[in-house]
Amino acid sequence: MKRDTRDMVTYPVNPIGVVRSTLRTRRDAPRQGCEGAPEAWLEVAPAVAKGLEGIAAGDEIIVITWFHRARRDVLEVHPRWDKRIPLTGVFATRSPDRPNPLGLHRVRVLEIAGDRLRVGPIEAIDGTPVVDLKPVLPGAADS
Amino acid sequence: MKRDTRDMVTYPVNPIGVVRSTLRTRRDAPRQGCEGAPEAWLEVAPAVAKGLEGIAAGDEIIVITWFHRARRDVLEVHPRWDKRIPLTGVFATRSPDRPNPLGLHRVRVLEIAGDRLRVGPIEAIDGTPVVDLKPVLPGAADS
Repeated sequence: MKRDTRDMVTYPVNPIGVVRSTLRTRRDAPRQGCEGAPEAWLEVAPAVAKGLEGIAAGDEIIVITWFHRARRDVLEVHPRWDKRIPLTGVFATRSPDRPNPLGLHRVRVLEIAGDRLRVGPIEAIDGTPVVDLKPVLPGAADS
Repeated sequence: MKRDTRDMVTYPVNPIGVVRSTLRTRRDAPRQGCEGAPEAWLEVAPAVAKGLEGIAAGDEIIVITWFHRARRDVLEVHPRWDKRIPLTGVFATRSPDRPNPLGLHRVRVLEIAGDRLRVGPIEAIDGTPVVDLKPVLPGAADS
């Protein structure tokens, strides 16, 4: 594969906040956000809280998390941890175990209290780092 | 803000591939993927190519990129680079300039050739690192 050296560097992700949830372990987490996940608070770091300006209660947003408990050396999984389903490449699944364990969570903003957002439903466990927030763009190809 | 030390660490993102596109500069890129963005090839690193197993031509996937040319110290922008629109927090926009410059691109897989995927439309410039691929889950809350 041709790649110039610029593409090979590693980039540091600095969490912008953290999930505060009643989900304490990966085993507690439902398999998809729509299957009974709870609400949670997102605590956003004061240093970047200005970036929240324009988000309102009622909005749908995409929360990008870093699954800090995930295994990064996994390339194939049984989807939904169901051994009856054949091994599948992680990029064809939403497994948290993957080379860069990013999680995408489309949620509703339920409440804003200073630098904290109450959102839901979200299947991330307590302490999961939040690395980005993005609006859902109605009709856009990339939401 | 109460955060334990675990949340404060920095995580290294290792690109899994790179975008090969006719878009050469940020100025070339359309403002949203749906506004005339071209197709592109995603070159996936051989070391993680096994993770592609299960992706097929015709699938819709979400490509997560790292906007390596972005400014990470920006917290407010004029959406769509339109100075007539008031300054807005970056987390309420899709600006590439943001603390962790992750890009979300919902695209169609048009062709698979070994470790390369032809996808579109996608508004990332040539050389943009790819950090994750995920399936679009019909009806799921997090797609």
